[in-house]
Amino acid sequence: MSKILIKNGHIWSACDDFVGDILVVDDKIAAIGKNLSENYSADEVIDADGLYVFPGGIDAHTHMELGFMGTQSADDFETGTLAGFHGGTTSIIDFAIQTQGDSLAACLNTWHEKAAKAVGDYAFHCAVTDYNEKTAKEIPELIKNGITSFKTFMAYKGALMIDDRMMMGLLKTVRQHGGLVSVHAENGDIVDAMVEEYKKAGTLSPKYHALAHPPEAEAEAAGRIMDLAHYNDAPIYLVHTSCKEALAKVQQNFLREQRILVETCSQYLLLDDSCYEEPDFQGAKYVMSPPIRKKKDQKALWHALQCGHIDTIATDHCPFNLCGQKDMGKDDFSRIPNGAAGVGHRLELIFSEGVKKERITMNRFVEVMSTNPANIFGMDKKGSLAIGKDADIVLLDPNEKHTISAKTHHHNVDSSIYEGWELTGRVKTVLSRGRVVVRDNKADQIKKGSGLFQKRKAFNFSY
Amino acid sequence: MSKILIKNGHIWSACDDFVGDILVVDDKIAAIGKNLSENYSADEVIDADGLYVFPGGIDAHTHMELGFMGTQSADDFETGTLAGFHGGTTSIIDFAIQTQGDSLAACLNTWHEKAAKAVGDYAFHCAVTDYNEKTAKEIPELIKNGITSFKTFMAYKGALMIDDRMMMGLLKTVRQHGGLVSVHAENGDIVDAMVEEYKKAGTLSPKYHALAHPPEAEAEAAGRIMDLAHYNDAPIYLVHTSCKEALAKVQQNFLREQRILVETCSQYLLLDDSCYEEPDFQGAKYVMSPPIRKKKDQKALWHALQCGHIDTIATDHCPFNLCGQKDMGKDDFSRIPNGAAGVGHRLELIFSEGVKKERITMNRFVEVMSTNPANIFGMDKKGSLAIGKDADIVLLDPNEKHTISAKTHHHNVDSSIYEGWELTGRVKTVLSRGRVVVRDNKADQIKKGSGLFQKRKAFNFSY
Amino acid sequence: MSKILIKNGHIWSACDDFVGDILVVDDKIAAIGKNLSENYSADEVIDADGLYVFPGGIDAHTHMELGFMGTQSADDFETGTLAGFHGGTTSIIDFAIQTQGDSLAACLNTWHEKAAKAVGDYAFHCAVTDYNEKTAKEIPELIKNGITSFKTFMAYKGALMIDDRMMMGLLKTVRQHGGLVSVHAENGDIVDAMVEEYKKAGTLSPKYHALAHPPEAEAEAAGRIMDLAHYNDAPIYLVHTSCKEALAKVQQNFLREQRILVETCSQYLLLDDSCYEEPDFQGAKYVMSPPIRKKKDQKALWHALQCGHIDTIATDHCPFNLCGQKDMGKDDFSRIPNGAAGVGHRLELIFSEGVKKERITMNRFVEVMSTNPANIFGMDKKGSLAIGKDADIVLLDPNEKHTISAKTHHHNVDSSIYEGWELTGRVKTVLSRGRVVVRDNKADQIKKGSGLFQKRKAFNFSY
Amino acid sequence: MSKILIKNGHIWSACDDFVGDILVVDDKIAAIGKNLSENYSADEVIDADGLYVFPGGIDAHTHMELGFMGTQSADDFETGTLAGFHGGTTSIIDFAIQTQGDSLAACLNTWHEKAAKAVGDYAFHCAVTDYNEKTAKEIPELIKNGITSFKTFMAYKGALMIDDRMMMGLLKTVRQHGGLVSVHAENGDIVDAMVEEYKKAGTLSPKYHALAHPPEAEAEAAGRIMDLAHYNDAPIYLVHTSCKEALAKVQQNFLREQRILVETCSQYLLLDDSCYEEPDFQGAKYVMSPPIRKKKDQKALWHALQCGHIDTIATDHCPFNLCGQKDMGKDDFSRIPNGAAGVGHRLELIFSEGVKKERITMNRFVEVMSTNPANIFGMDKKGSLAIGKDADIVLLDPNEKHTISAKTHHHNVDSSIYEGWELTGRVKTVLSRGRVVVRDNKADQIKKGSGLFQKRKAFNFSY
Repeated sequence: MSKILIKNGHIWSACDDFVGDILVVDDKIAAIGKNLSENYSADEVIDADGLYVFPGGIDAHTHMELGFMGTQSADDFETGTLAGFHGGTTSIIDFAIQTQGDSLAACLNTWHEKAAKAVGDYAFHCAVTDYNEKTAKEIPELIKNGITSFKTFMAYKGALMIDDRMMMGLLKTVRQHGGLVSVHAENGDIVDAMVEEYKKAGTLSPKYHALAHPPEAEAEAAGRIMDLAHYNDAPIYLVHTSCKEALAKVQQNFLREQRILVETCSQYLLLDDSCYEEPDFQGAKYVMSPPIRKKKDQKALWHALQCGHIDTIATDHCPFNLCGQKDMGKDDFSRIPNGAAGVGHRLELIFSEGVKKERITMNRFVEVMSTNPANIFGMDKKGSLAIGKDADIVLLDPNEKHTISAKTHHHNVDSSIYEGWELTGRVKTVLSRGRVVVRDNKADQIKKGSGLFQKRKAFNFSY
Repeated sequence: MSKILIKNGHIWSACDDFVGDILVVDDKIAAIGKNLSENYSADEVIDADGLYVFPGGIDAHTHMELGFMGTQSADDFETGTLAGFHGGTTSIIDFAIQTQGDSLAACLNTWHEKAAKAVGDYAFHCAVTDYNEKTAKEIPELIKNGITSFKTFMAYKGALMIDDRMMMGLLKTVRQHGGLVSVHAENGDIVDAMVEEYKKAGTLSPKYHALAHPPEAEAEAAGRIMDLAHYNDAPIYLVHTSCKEALAKVQQNFLREQRILVETCSQYLLLDDSCYEEPDFQGAKYVMSPPIRKKKDQKALWHALQCGHIDTIATDHCPFNLCGQKDMGKDDFSRIPNGAAGVGHRLELIFSEGVKKERITMNRFVEVMSTNPANIFGMDKKGSLAIGKDADIVLLDPNEKHTISAKTHHHNVDSSIYEGWELTGRVKTVLSRGRVVVRDNKADQIKKGSGLFQKRKAFNFSY
Repeated sequence: MSKILIKNGHIWSACDDFVGDILVVDDKIAAIGKNLSENYSADEVIDADGLYVFPGGIDAHTHMELGFMGTQSADDFETGTLAGFHGGTTSIIDFAIQTQGDSLAACLNTWHEKAAKAVGDYAFHCAVTDYNEKTAKEIPELIKNGITSFKTFMAYKGALMIDDRMMMGLLKTVRQHGGLVSVHAENGDIVDAMVEEYKKAGTLSPKYHALAHPPEAEAEAAGRIMDLAHYNDAPIYLVHTSCKEALAKVQQNFLREQRILVETCSQYLLLDDSCYEEPDFQGAKYVMSPPIRKKKDQKALWHALQCGHIDTIATDHCPFNLCGQKDMGKDDFSRIPNGAAGVGHRLELIFSEGVKKERITMNRFVEVMSTNPANIFGMDKKGSLAIGKDADIVLLDPNEKHTISAKTHHHNVDSSIYEGWELTGRVKTVLSRGRVVVRDNKADQIKKGSGLFQKRKAFNFSY
Repeated sequence: MSKILIKNGHIWSACDDFVGDILVVDDKIAAIGKNLSENYSADEVIDADGLYVFPGGIDAHTHMELGFMGTQSADDFETGTLAGFHGGTTSIIDFAIQTQGDSLAACLNTWHEKAAKAVGDYAFHCAVTDYNEKTAKEIPELIKNGITSFKTFMAYKGALMIDDRMMMGLLKTVRQHGGLVSVHAENGDIVDAMVEEYKKAGTLSPKYHALAHPPEAEAEAAGRIMDLAHYNDAPIYLVHTSCKEALAKVQQNFLREQRILVETCSQYLLLDDSCYEEPDFQGAKYVMSPPIRKKKDQKALWHALQCGHIDTIATDHCPFNLCGQKDMGKDDFSRIPNGAAGVGHRLELIFSEGVKKERITMNRFVEVMSTNPANIFGMDKKGSLAIGKDADIVLLDPNEKHTISAKTHHHNVDSSIYEGWELTGRVKTVLSRGRVVVRDNKADQIKKGSGLFQKRKAFNFSY
């Protein structure tokens, strides 16, 4: 039995805060109080004086080692979850993506294999790219096995997209068996039409990627999936919501008493589309779907976050090297692999830009970073510092300043969309299931494959 | 130093739950953990096995000993807070209501005197019924003294209502000094016009009270105050929201990135306007403003509650005896004193109808019953079971059934709007600042005047 | 030179009314005034005393002799336009529907051949079911040839539907060359999914057709096409709008300054879905897409009509015999040919139910029946009684009562969705291009093939 | 019997156009046709070759000789209606404004006296500034006497404003007796609060007038009156709608099937708030309520006009001399008389900016300038060129260019808000009830007092 005492920290949950101590016994949180050392012994005492202490982050949207657009995302489960650790993210939910024609079981096998080397904990959403009678029968099985959320793509026709007919079936089946459908809401046909148009016009630099993914494409798909979900009386989770127009559809549908959960990503809160103007093909770093939007969209997203209309912040972590991967699209934006790194920066970015700048409270920060993802996706050992939960704990110095750079980040990629970004607030020490995995900013005692698969519970429909 | 150990309860916060123990030292929560008795001694151990343990309720909307419509509300601060204790509500926020022509200071003096005999803790909203240059100058002073929210009435012209011009000034001044404006949103002119019309028509039974307060009157005023608040960039708190039409205005205004906080009351979630048809003047029990609405409104309110678009549930506790008070309006609904009792039933009603019926989660229950009122209104010692907070703790048996009746309730009034209502879940034991005040359903060691005034902090604008 | 004088009628346009005379010279309207006989001689004088005189109706949505669902609509251009005459409709716009794989030119050839025997005037919308580079090139050619509107189907996948990618191209191309896109807004995938579901469940009677075409399917598609049109800055014309939910999408999009034109059909204003409960497979008469909706939808449609949010009333005339055609789906609603007759009843139905019941003014009646279809679709010889226009003139007795029945109607079909409907107001006499074609309710001097193809002008974007 | 033949004009109604002749006999339109001279003799032939011929304009919102803010509007009924003639406006509807405390009858007497010298035709709206039992009784009487619309002010508290309670009564009474309520929608309390604030701040130049009348003040009042009207099931007519925010409230309320008629004025379509920056107190010219708005508002208004969501364009003609009147507010914007001249320019401005620039069709132009005001307000002899209507006819050269200037305009005022505005399209000749009153831009045979009071019909609720 190992005991660690975190002493004198400013402890934050999604709904509380106080100064006190946390006792960790083995992998769990065992006691919380003042001056616990008066009553408990400990093998190790970590001084948290002046630090914020809160539950380990959960990034509910990552793509490690994903084969995509003729290449593979640059972080695997080991480097990706390690980068997460450095930034205070102790769990991820990655997407096990069905190959059209194959079974869901097959894709889960593949992903379990890929994830075996993870150092952080992980779970899987199952991305259904081919819904049919066979798939329908696998769904209850998956839910029993702790895969309780099902991602769908309304874009990437011919590769990942399912049509509305499949979507109708999927929504019904998943609802019936207690799962949750999450959606990449972009109208793939609009995007494909625009890409074709820009290609015909010979306008092929990275910024045309953004123009080929207009807000209408996202808002249309968001509206459509809400209509389908409304018919099926199913809740829905919108991933990586990026623009005011899509939020507006959500807010309009509140009026008909529909349950809609909304995720955004750090980059949509922080970057604006002037990034695509960066010279020397640097704009390619920001090629992702949906693309980076405008300042008006940031404003709308921050406000929705403050009000609780956005439930989670994730990253859509999916890095590609500028040199050797992104540059496949040097002469054609449509061949630039979509995605960027983020898992390692999410907490510090949002702490610095959100909490320190008083756009959101620290409680809301914990809620959208950890507690809500855990609750929505049924990770019942995670998401809070409650007694008996996994001791996934972050200690953050709220005042230390530092600067993001590809030279120093822990992502396995040659560039950063946040290069030069100056932050206030730094993750110092991180525990994962009671083990110190980052100590004073440095990885500690990391063991390849020590990450554990998290079986998740079914969706709580009164949530 | 007194120590109480609450053992083996199912402990719930607004964001967590687990089975464990709570150690109370004197008036504060000192430690939380499993098997605390192994490490701590205690003067008293309370067995919470099988019980739900959560923070004491805060009823943010009560009217004790209020002079109104030629009479006085039937509960005073002693009987009212004692009734609260029995139902798990350990704090109230009552309204100190300015008399037009007098200063705010004068009304606060009056209310401090009235409240001196309270057994539960209390704070005050200040209801501004006469805004002028003098009032404006008093506001920063009040905020310094812990009165940080300012209620206004858009109805009761000539008595409590302020016009839109005063409202503009008030919104600006309060915003500037860090306070929050809360609003009784009913268009008094519409109501007065309708009352006059029904009186002319000689239709004077209680149900015409409801008809004279149509949803349009509430929705109009809600829309108007949001327009005024939007201009002044001020957040707004809508009290006792009762109907779908008013919620719709809130939801429409989300689209322009406005911060609107919404309160409803137990009765609007649970009762429908068929109550006004009860024979023998029983309908008078339900005469309150806004009136009880329709089933469609209940549905909208429950959904908004689930989604977090409603932030708090209060009671607007303001009881009048059917015999001797309500019957002043036997022949004229407009003379029936407006109001009903609720402070003692709020938690059990919403637990039974909300949590047990799976309309909301237990976490949301704690949030709207206790944590949100504390956070919104700056009661920094209350609202959670965090270390160092006041030990206001409720132990509730989630399965015990009981029935509400005026014969057994603790309200000082001769009737109940919930007469015969069967509930699942019963408050068993309650602590107020570390003192057991209810034990096995019975008041324990209550000392008149032991309730404490709670100075509140300024509004957190990033909330 | 032939001259007809219509004397002493109550003459109505979309914006005027007065009692007076109309002089028709040859095929045109030559003069309007009081007591024209004092100044003009005439070959024939028609006494219109007590009658309403207004421009011949234009039914902008018919399907004559349409091969569909393994059979063919029961009226051909001769019987269909003759039925139109009897009901005061002197022009139709039929749909020339491209066969997927074929050219637009080919389909127009086919339709020109079919229409050669028409007795009433006709124009064609071109329904694009296969948009590609070839189609794109044909569009400007068609517009030059007077085919200026292009219908698309968002339903009937695999037969008529185009996907959103084609739609993007079509909207852009048509906008660029001055045409107008009209849309059958139903989400074909939703419908197909529901049909499959009901078939699996073995629920196969006609009413399941209605359940398989829920309002969500229509509203979703309406919302989607508006998003696509908004992106392309293209106006859009929604055909046969049937439900409140679709109208709501239109009204919401007014807020973003989008030009949306809306058609409904007589049956959606008049019938409700209780019709599907008729015994003995009679419900099959009402099988059409969208299906007959609910009373709340009628109410919303009438209101939108009154306010000018609905621009035209058409019929979607597409009759099938109950015996020999509809009964192909005796045991499977999905095999019942979709459609019903209406071209002969439109004016009298809406006059009786709309004008006589004071839901709309007589001016609005003329506007939506004749003037708007002419203006929207560029039929510059039609749509009004102005000098120089084609003398398409209806004389209607506003007080004569009669009853609709399949026994007496002029549709070439064995049943009627309006069987037994009692009407006030009857078309007595009709002129088509100066020829009396109906006299005292009876066809007069009809010559097969005397109908003329109407070349239409490009869309007026300031309309 | 006098006969005038207008020959070969391009004749436009709200729903037709053609090239032809109009025969005027005495004061009425007698015949319309081609080459009427072949069949009719005439005393005078007016060659309209190349000219547009359409019905005389109706300005539904003027204030002639209005005592206001310590002075009087600079045009009286003679100069004002003469200026109207020059610009093609042959009828006005002026506001007979009740003095608080006096009867409606008294104010009508006053206005009938003022109007006795009018040269153009006129009608009255009755502005109710004091609604009580007496007023209520006068309303049916007024309606019988052809005063069928009742204006209310939601601003100018203490002078013109009625409160919501009066408004409830007025809406009900007017609805019951077949009249229409029209509303100046600005929240007077907001405005008064802002004026006071700017005065305290010593910011007193004309532009603060605009800042003291924010869009929120207009939109709030528009929303409120629609809520009140909705409750009373009464249609409502919003005068001088100036901003997108108010239009948005209208469009949102379409969703609940409410009948709302909307007026805007020329200046809101054409000017933007940069005008308030003009040096040397020139900004005072534009001081009116609501104030001139922003370019985004113009855009929204033009779109609403195109779509038919705006029903009429008026002027709110209420001129004050810069020198001697406006300069009363030299040092205090709140003392600048509110208003500007417009009656003489309305048609030419909107023709030039609307029709020639293809923002609206010529038919819509006629509709909002003449036909709709006649229909909405029951002026059954006006608003169209139909047989038997008053021969109020405008002949306009669609291509002649000219420039507006105070030096040449016919308003009795020393300045113009349109100074230097270059227009395409000029009114050449105007007939009023069969008399040529303007010939080749010059007044002709004008006789003081020749204008006739127009009794108006009750509101058509199916309109």
